[in-house]
Amino acid sequence: MADEVVLLDFWPSMFGIRVRIALAEKGVKYEYKEEDLKNKSPLLLQMNPVHKKIPVLIHNGRPVCESPIIVQYIDEVWKDKAPLLPSDPYQRAQARFWVDFIDKKMYDSSRKTWTTKGEEQEAAKKEFFEVLKTLEGQLGDKPFFGGDNFGYVDLSLIPFYCWFYTYETCGKFSVEAECPKFIAWVKRCLQRETVAKALPDGKKVFEFVSVMRTNLGLE
Amino acid sequence: MADEVVLLDFWPSMFGIRVRIALAEKGVKYEYKEEDLKNKSPLLLQMNPVHKKIPVLIHNGRPVCESPIIVQYIDEVWKDKAPLLPSDPYQRAQARFWVDFIDKKMYDSSRKTWTTKGEEQEAAKKEFFEVLKTLEGQLGDKPFFGGDNFGYVDLSLIPFYCWFYTYETCGKFSVEAECPKFIAWVKRCLQRETVAKALPDGKKVFEFVSVMRTNLGLE
Repeated sequence: MADEVVLLDFWPSMFGIRVRIALAEKGVKYEYKEEDLKNKSPLLLQMNPVHKKIPVLIHNGRPVCESPIIVQYIDEVWKDKAPLLPSDPYQRAQARFWVDFIDKKMYDSSRKTWTTKGEEQEAAKKEFFEVLKTLEGQLGDKPFFGGDNFGYVDLSLIPFYCWFYTYETCGKFSVEAECPKFIAWVKRCLQRETVAKALPDGKKVFEFVSVMRTNLGLE
Repeated sequence: MADEVVLLDFWPSMFGIRVRIALAEKGVKYEYKEEDLKNKSPLLLQMNPVHKKIPVLIHNGRPVCESPIIVQYIDEVWKDKAPLLPSDPYQRAQARFWVDFIDKKMYDSSRKTWTTKGEEQEAAKKEFFEVLKTLEGQLGDKPFFGGDNFGYVDLSLIPFYCWFYTYETCGKFSVEAECPKFIAWVKRCLQRETVAKALPDGKKVFEFVSVMRTNLGLE
């Protein structure tokens, strides 16, 4: 039986982009279904009744939810090509730790750079740069978080880059000025076709965000 | 070389108890080091500089942090005995999903049953029971979340039970009255020596909590 793979997703979602990169790395063909998050499809509500969130990977009719779990699932099912997690248990634990760190620390602080203003925004910018500096420290002199090869941590972090134009424009800062090593890593990632094709243009994300900022009374 | 295993922990921590149960299931001998969270040891700060939190498993000098990651590490390193995660990729993804659900939804709502009062406490109680009902639905008629065998989800959820006396006393409710199937599952888990030995007495947890509640101005 051929694999039937469907992805419920929303184009600017960094969590959805992770899954798109993972599927591209593995060469898995799939049907992409764009969700309207203001009017969620019956399929999304049926496939992710607990969180009702994208992305959802539906593999032969069975749903997998939450992007780090989906990416690990993809790596375990399509295991013969382009390994994403390291094979050594300690290195696997370290990779999981840094993806967990990104989810716990980077999402909130980066989001607040464009959803808040004044003191709250200043605090968010400070935290965002602390997160980036911590990640730069972890990267060290390696080309990728996965070492010589692009891997699970790289794939989980690079989708945030398509939001950087938004963070920088709304927060009035330059990531490259503060964290040049981080941006050098971004450029290495963007040389991969799987990454370059999956990341939407930063200005398109900003246009989308501008509507939300107007609705939030920030513009 | 014999494995040198050290656990930095704090006795009432549900996250630490997970690791204690996992090590007991695998029959791994280890040195337990109790942390004073008001005066964290240099070893803890050195081994978990990012989060500075327990539990930390130190295996042959190398730290692993965050309880779901530690438990998966233990399962991958000591893989010949008592498998904790299912071997099938889809079942593994499902197990990871439910542990993630517990961490995202159960901890906050359960904690607020004893750290808040009034409307905020009522909202926390409502959410806590929604979480328990969702978990009961997932358990269904199986003896364990892992099916016939005690596994990763069971191990990650059962440590909360030693806090139930606190939740029930502070929140003035009975879990057994509302969720009898959940409590029947608790009793099955407690029949395991690994679980019974790892869970502190609920009244001892409550005594510890009472001091904190006094400090919070709730008693």
